[in-house]
Amino acid sequence: MMVLQTQPRLLTLEGGEGAGKSTVLRALRDALLADGCEVVCTREPGGTPLAERIRGLLLDAGDEPVEPHAELLLMFAARAQHVRELIVPALARGAWVICDRFTDSSYAYQGAARGMDVGFIAELERRVVGIAPGFTLLLDIDVAHARERTRGRDLLTGAIPDRIERERDEFFERVRAGFLARAAQHPARFHVVDAGADISAVTEAALARLAAYRRGVA
Amino acid sequence: MMVLQTQPRLLTLEGGEGAGKSTVLRALRDALLADGCEVVCTREPGGTPLAERIRGLLLDAGDEPVEPHAELLLMFAARAQHVRELIVPALARGAWVICDRFTDSSYAYQGAARGMDVGFIAELERRVVGIAPGFTLLLDIDVAHARERTRGRDLLTGAIPDRIERERDEFFERVRAGFLARAAQHPARFHVVDAGADISAVTEAALARLAAYRRGVA
Repeated sequence: MMVLQTQPRLLTLEGGEGAGKSTVLRALRDALLADGCEVVCTREPGGTPLAERIRGLLLDAGDEPVEPHAELLLMFAARAQHVRELIVPALARGAWVICDRFTDSSYAYQGAARGMDVGFIAELERRVVGIAPGFTLLLDIDVAHARERTRGRDLLTGAIPDRIERERDEFFERVRAGFLARAAQHPARFHVVDAGADISAVTEAALARLAAYRRGVA
Repeated sequence: MMVLQTQPRLLTLEGGEGAGKSTVLRALRDALLADGCEVVCTREPGGTPLAERIRGLLLDAGDEPVEPHAELLLMFAARAQHVRELIVPALARGAWVICDRFTDSSYAYQGAARGMDVGFIAELERRVVGIAPGFTLLLDIDVAHARERTRGRDLLTGAIPDRIERERDEFFERVRAGFLARAAQHPARFHVVDAGADISAVTEAALARLAAYRRGVA
């Protein structure tokens, strides 16, 4: 499968930690459920038992440095599993799928931030993934602002930052720039929302974008 | 790194289960140790803590079918980790490295037996691995004969066949043909030994091949 097939009912959320993805995902899900749609909510890396075990390796590799190529291939191994075992069957029966992160995250994290060859990432996408979302919501937020939010959340919940979250601000600046570059390359698919605003305003903007998209694909 | 660098002190053992790889590996190691060489013995998939965790996923994925692309990328993710963290540092300090399985196994198992695109495997090899062994010993054995040996061993040790070992004979016929095709493509590097013979004859043949190789590279 060498050409990407756009899937109108595959919706993806992208953006760094602290952008409010979980809250927005629930709001999009509820809007679709209220209209009687079947909705599958999932995440990457993960989404199947094997892919979640790969996620575990990616986020906690112990003391061993993770080679950039190993990280990239683990991400796409998990994605291959997720797409074939969960996403494609759900789309085939007519469900909507909302995925917290998808291939755009590999372009932003492994490509823009780690400097891996974007041509190679594109080849993995064509060969291993084969599908692209019809609608991608990018929750864009200033890195310092997002840090403040995740710090507040971690203090509250006692969560310990994982291997990726422990990267420095320069890394997340490159991730952010990578996402914005992807959005500029795919303006019809990407919907960029200012996630620095109040969460209710962010959610409202996201719902408006989804409603407009659904009128377009209906 | 897009051109494969041949590493004269990287020796690999290839062949199916039941071919006697472990016994031969120990004999090669002992021969090098007796000459005062530093020797690192390792295996694939595996060889570092993270790569061994990836091996665990590959050999026991629970009830979930493993997508062929996921299997291929997990193999190369483990190999990327193994090459950079263990093999390259060992070679750099002048050690010999003997590896039970290496990239040729991906050509035989994922390429020839599972039918994955060999051009893609070659690209992963160039991009992710970057090095090739100087000497590869292929222990070639009839599939039925190998089955008989592994059955005997499993009865003795109570071992349960893993996900790959549970494949059918046709699969292992394709693996064997894949290895022989690799050997035909790389005749200078490959040394094919008839592993159906008595293990002491196999070991003797392997040691003679290594001795001749070392005279050549010394």
